[in-house]
Amino acid sequence: MSEIPRSVLWREGIVQILDQTLLPGEETVLQCCDIEAVFEAIQSLRVRGAPAIGIAAAYGMVVGLDDYVSLQQLKARADLLKSARPTAVNLAWAVDKITARAARELAVQSASLVKTGIERVAVAKLENEAGAIHAADIKACHAIGELGLAIVEAHPNLLTHCNAGALAVSELGTALAPVYLAHRRGIELHVFVDETRPLLQGARLTTYELGREGVPNTLITDNMAAHVMSLGKVDAVLVGADRVAANGDVANKIGTLNLAVLCRYFSLPFYVACPLSTIDLKTKTGDLIEIEERPVKEISYIGGQQITAFPLQIYNPAFDVTPASLVTAIITDRGLVHRPCRENLSRLVYG
Amino acid sequence: MSEIPRSVLWREGIVQILDQTLLPGEETVLQCCDIEAVFEAIQSLRVRGAPAIGIAAAYGMVVGLDDYVSLQQLKARADLLKSARPTAVNLAWAVDKITARAARELAVQSASLVKTGIERVAVAKLENEAGAIHAADIKACHAIGELGLAIVEAHPNLLTHCNAGALAVSELGTALAPVYLAHRRGIELHVFVDETRPLLQGARLTTYELGREGVPNTLITDNMAAHVMSLGKVDAVLVGADRVAANGDVANKIGTLNLAVLCRYFSLPFYVACPLSTIDLKTKTGDLIEIEERPVKEISYIGGQQITAFPLQIYNPAFDVTPASLVTAIITDRGLVHRPCRENLSRLVYG
Repeated sequence: MSEIPRSVLWREGIVQILDQTLLPGEETVLQCCDIEAVFEAIQSLRVRGAPAIGIAAAYGMVVGLDDYVSLQQLKARADLLKSARPTAVNLAWAVDKITARAARELAVQSASLVKTGIERVAVAKLENEAGAIHAADIKACHAIGELGLAIVEAHPNLLTHCNAGALAVSELGTALAPVYLAHRRGIELHVFVDETRPLLQGARLTTYELGREGVPNTLITDNMAAHVMSLGKVDAVLVGADRVAANGDVANKIGTLNLAVLCRYFSLPFYVACPLSTIDLKTKTGDLIEIEERPVKEISYIGGQQITAFPLQIYNPAFDVTPASLVTAIITDRGLVHRPCRENLSRLVYG
Repeated sequence: MSEIPRSVLWREGIVQILDQTLLPGEETVLQCCDIEAVFEAIQSLRVRGAPAIGIAAAYGMVVGLDDYVSLQQLKARADLLKSARPTAVNLAWAVDKITARAARELAVQSASLVKTGIERVAVAKLENEAGAIHAADIKACHAIGELGLAIVEAHPNLLTHCNAGALAVSELGTALAPVYLAHRRGIELHVFVDETRPLLQGARLTTYELGREGVPNTLITDNMAAHVMSLGKVDAVLVGADRVAANGDVANKIGTLNLAVLCRYFSLPFYVACPLSTIDLKTKTGDLIEIEERPVKEISYIGGQQITAFPLQIYNPAFDVTPASLVTAIITDRGLVHRPCRENLSRLVYG
């Protein structure tokens, strides 16, 4: 991945964050030397994608600290970072993991020392914990890439939606991981990229990533997918996921269900790629997943310019739910699940 | 239709054209006193929609003339107007109809008078011919409205694409004609409006029209259609058509095929509304219809702002073709055609 800048890096005590709000026009790497800078980058969506946010927040817990830190200090930092995007599950998970590590370290110390009430833990250990979160994500992405490789080889003409690439994770991506690995191994492929209204992650981020890596790709508007499929130009659809319910229903960026239905009509396979952590066995079915509605200005304004005038009713759901019956297989870092259902998904998670 | 400004009107020798490039932000009616002004309005897409362009061009043939005009003058005017949008079939058809009327008038005069070579025809007669083209379009729209009324009554929660409303024709519209009539008769209905990328005719024009008329409507991005259907919020899809092949295949704005496939999956009816003149029996099947590809800047720039950066491959087909097998019925001014096919379409055209 020498060609695509990393979404998040940790270099000599500094969190480097690629500012995705400036992409693709500008490649600016923010040098975040304190927690406030990391907070701002998360809140302003300069770093996006659940795993990438988690990694940035983990490093945000330790950035700018001296050699030792108290649990109290860490909890204050965690509260601050969580408030940057309150609903981001990976963010809370990552900062809680750092705090828990500190608590464990302190428990070991307490067992051997007299308690003073201002016990402190070595920041280097927490830095290692953040590094472990980062490393685990890299490992998961590469595993998804390897496990999805045969699918991309068999279906080299792909269509994808939104951005499930390197920018959303540590590197490689989820849905795009097998695409990058296949490309590096000399497999000829082509990816149609849905622009992905309203926020245009496909047009802005996915074409940028694929272009940087030299993967042949063609940008289309979301409503062109049926047409390019009817011309026989697509072998399969490959997308990421925000959450997979226990029965295999898939919540992902709005427009995903549309593609899954098209695949059924045109007899094309529909693949979902995500780390195992995305499978949420506590949510039984997709209709129990709450669909976030976002500000209508995302639709009525484009690039600061208003495209509608009337006092207008606008509906802006951020996600939709694709029923498991339309999913050919889910590619995870722990294995492929064909025809996902309650049985084979829980076997994967618990097995 | 007191609430929606007419796309084209003829008032005391002036062609009034609503400038659609300024909608919905500004409602400006151009007062075209000469052929050059009409030419500019057509060329710059201030008037759009095949029937509306035809009406504007018909009046453009006579605007600014004194009492009499020669056939030679008319032919020059026809050539000028045709060059404004060379591929617009209705434009050529309308101006040729005016010239043909002039030729007929002159033939009658020649039979009774000595030929001088500079015969002239009364402009008033050609003005009547232009008025007849305009009146025929109004009649066709109202007939579509009446014939489609029962469909809208039975399916009051509609979804439409692009702009097949009053702005594209003389008044009422094609797909929107039954919607307006139903609304005026007190039928409660709601229309989801696809924004219709790349040129956003749905967001800019259809929501404007429906809002002016007071028809409840909700704007969505094109990729949300599957989601709103999955929530049970849509009873039927109703769209216009650019051309219908002899076998019932329908060419219409890109994204139409997408909706037809979704209707099949969600067991919803898919209706097409168009005047009889849109049915092209000379084109046997939809795959013989050439799909116009438009400039890629329509996708990579929005409102003058570039949203992509890389040297990028972009595909921008303006239309797609929906197979007849996905069309529930075609609503024309001369009758409804259920399950369109070669037999029932040719019966409608020739019967």
